[in-house]
Amino acid sequence: MGARPLAGSMARMRPFASLASKEEALARLLGAVAPLAATEQVVTVEAAGRVLAQPVVAPLDVPGFTRSTMDGYAVRAADTFGASTLSPKTLRLLAVTHAGDPAAPSVLPGTCVQIATGGKLPPGADAVVRVEGTRAGPEGHVVVVEMVTPGTSLAEQGSDIARGTEVLAPGVVLTPARVGLLASLGLTEVACYRRPRVLILPTGNEIVPLGSPVGEGQIYNSNTHTLAAVVRENGGIPLLHPVVADTLEAHVAALQKGMAEADLVLVSGGSSVGERDVLQDAVRPLGEILVHGVRVKPGKPLLVARLRSGQALIGFPGNPTSCLMNAYLFLVPALRALARLPPRPHRTVRAVLGERVLHQKGRFQFLPVRLEAGKAYDTFKGSGALTSLSEADGYIGIPEDVELLEAGTEVEVTLF
Amino acid sequence: MGARPLAGSMARMRPFASLASKEEALARLLGAVAPLAATEQVVTVEAAGRVLAQPVVAPLDVPGFTRSTMDGYAVRAADTFGASTLSPKTLRLLAVTHAGDPAAPSVLPGTCVQIATGGKLPPGADAVVRVEGTRAGPEGHVVVVEMVTPGTSLAEQGSDIARGTEVLAPGVVLTPARVGLLASLGLTEVACYRRPRVLILPTGNEIVPLGSPVGEGQIYNSNTHTLAAVVRENGGIPLLHPVVADTLEAHVAALQKGMAEADLVLVSGGSSVGERDVLQDAVRPLGEILVHGVRVKPGKPLLVARLRSGQALIGFPGNPTSCLMNAYLFLVPALRALARLPPRPHRTVRAVLGERVLHQKGRFQFLPVRLEAGKAYDTFKGSGALTSLSEADGYIGIPEDVELLEAGTEVEVTLF
Repeated sequence: MGARPLAGSMARMRPFASLASKEEALARLLGAVAPLAATEQVVTVEAAGRVLAQPVVAPLDVPGFTRSTMDGYAVRAADTFGASTLSPKTLRLLAVTHAGDPAAPSVLPGTCVQIATGGKLPPGADAVVRVEGTRAGPEGHVVVVEMVTPGTSLAEQGSDIARGTEVLAPGVVLTPARVGLLASLGLTEVACYRRPRVLILPTGNEIVPLGSPVGEGQIYNSNTHTLAAVVRENGGIPLLHPVVADTLEAHVAALQKGMAEADLVLVSGGSSVGERDVLQDAVRPLGEILVHGVRVKPGKPLLVARLRSGQALIGFPGNPTSCLMNAYLFLVPALRALARLPPRPHRTVRAVLGERVLHQKGRFQFLPVRLEAGKAYDTFKGSGALTSLSEADGYIGIPEDVELLEAGTEVEVTLF
Repeated sequence: MGARPLAGSMARMRPFASLASKEEALARLLGAVAPLAATEQVVTVEAAGRVLAQPVVAPLDVPGFTRSTMDGYAVRAADTFGASTLSPKTLRLLAVTHAGDPAAPSVLPGTCVQIATGGKLPPGADAVVRVEGTRAGPEGHVVVVEMVTPGTSLAEQGSDIARGTEVLAPGVVLTPARVGLLASLGLTEVACYRRPRVLILPTGNEIVPLGSPVGEGQIYNSNTHTLAAVVRENGGIPLLHPVVADTLEAHVAALQKGMAEADLVLVSGGSSVGERDVLQDAVRPLGEILVHGVRVKPGKPLLVARLRSGQALIGFPGNPTSCLMNAYLFLVPALRALARLPPRPHRTVRAVLGERVLHQKGRFQFLPVRLEAGKAYDTFKGSGALTSLSEADGYIGIPEDVELLEAGTEVEVTLF
């Protein structure tokens, strides 16, 4: 990695010093990512998917009172002993109690109170006979044809959650059930870890923002869009930035913005070894380069650094497919670690190759494939081709030392 | 299903007429759901996860010009024939071209142009020798040690996408790769199906909104929160509504709001057969009841209707666990059909039961389980207990005719 060539010179490019394996590259990246410690209060109704930052201790019993779990009749269980269709027991109906009502009058021997699901158990009663266990009786009476024991069809006060119990520990992801749990405790907001802010820096003099005309030799900015989508899908907040010119000054200014405002910095383009690939030169005074070049295909020109301000930086190749495959491989685990989210669930299906696949030895290849009737077909058309991935359902990994895979080979497809 | 009892009377409750199997109930619900036809324009950078409503036809070639896929040297391939480390070929370097530059001067026999990845191929050149295939040469020259054939390391104009091609068909979900594809075509927005608006109606005199004190016999509104989270996770927009009182009038007014403003109406509570379970009476004049009661546990008191205004209505039991299990089982597929999303990917793991599980025959049971070291443990504590689900990693399904599962039985756990 020699000195930067003079502008306008015909200096040679600088090849990669050494390529890391994908495992090494990922390990070094994860080593540079410290899970975020900052927290914020999140309104309970919007807390699904967030990561809890503090223990939740129940401020009240759930249920807050002993309640019926069925529509039926609150009884003294002893009054139903021996009841059956052949030996019905008739009880006098004292009152009706619904969910939300204060407790009804006491249930004395030989009597009952009609109770709805969620109704507060009246004093004296110790069980509920469900409506299906009763028959119509004479006016003001109910005929019980089913025996119950004390506690039947009841949820005792505090039986789900006793006041003072820690119900959720820091670090758990708030699923719908856990959000419901917070709500059932009356909690209007909850402390969660802040979502990582991820600055996305598109670089390259050839890159044009959407909405502008493309001139000769120019292309539209697609990587910002793919990276922003991956960031959102994995718990981050993408911060968009205009295209950064291929100069050291522009790169340094953009990186400093990231160091001041973001939790993770992504750069697309400029990570390779071309003359205008100034990323490594811009990064060197601002931090430490941990990886430059990785033995994967597509996606070799990956750059990973730790910035002096503590954030990790990932430099992606500008080629859209390389950029996105690197995002799945490196950005997703790093961002989820930063966000304290569990690893992305991998969904895989088994399929057989529908065609022979040739492979260049020496690099781990991620081959995008389309699934059709249980067969996997190669959709890779070059690392610049976004249709390589937009037409794919997932990808297969081909190890470094494999030269070809015959049609009919069974493969495991990781779905996007 | 007799007439509604007089208010304040001690009338008996009305048992379910007949219970549907879960398959029947789901089929009837899906039969009442028409995928949304309305569309809206969505900004490309926010389109990930949305469903495309119109075909996307490429307005331009991608790449828009023949470009280099490597950092290297644009050459006439014939000049490299026979080149190797032992037989190097020296070419005169004419110029340097970077991505974004207009085309460089023509490459004549015996010359080359330094080119960066993404750079426009100069006239006369028909291939690129990657930088790794070259060595330093005398001033103003490059030594080529690798032979290339015409087309090597090039992406031809239109080779990824030819202008006028339909690149995405209506109905596809916009993955990150597809969003990138839209961006690479310069499209700033795209027509997507509208997201379903889902009105959530919590009912019950006992239900108190978060932030208020709970009185005797009252509980906090948790179902709105769990349902809103499930709706968001599955492509819908939850519309929240204050608690609806247990009166026919309040129910009818709330349902009419749903008929006017929502694409799907969810009601929690009031779907059972208690005296104040007025949902069925409120729904009958406004639509057709398709399901009332389903042979699942928890979640028997499900109500499904088709409203006269065309929307489906799902009435959930008020018990939090019943409500949420029904949401996973019935709401998720119905909402995804409405949103034109593919079925929710089911992630399953195999485990062995860590304990014996007893089961009441005649109802399909969804048993929430916690996973620990490959073993599954029952977390079900009753359908009122939210900890049944908040502590679970997933659930197992126990068929209607099974009486018990011994510890050690291998089971398939569907993860939440």
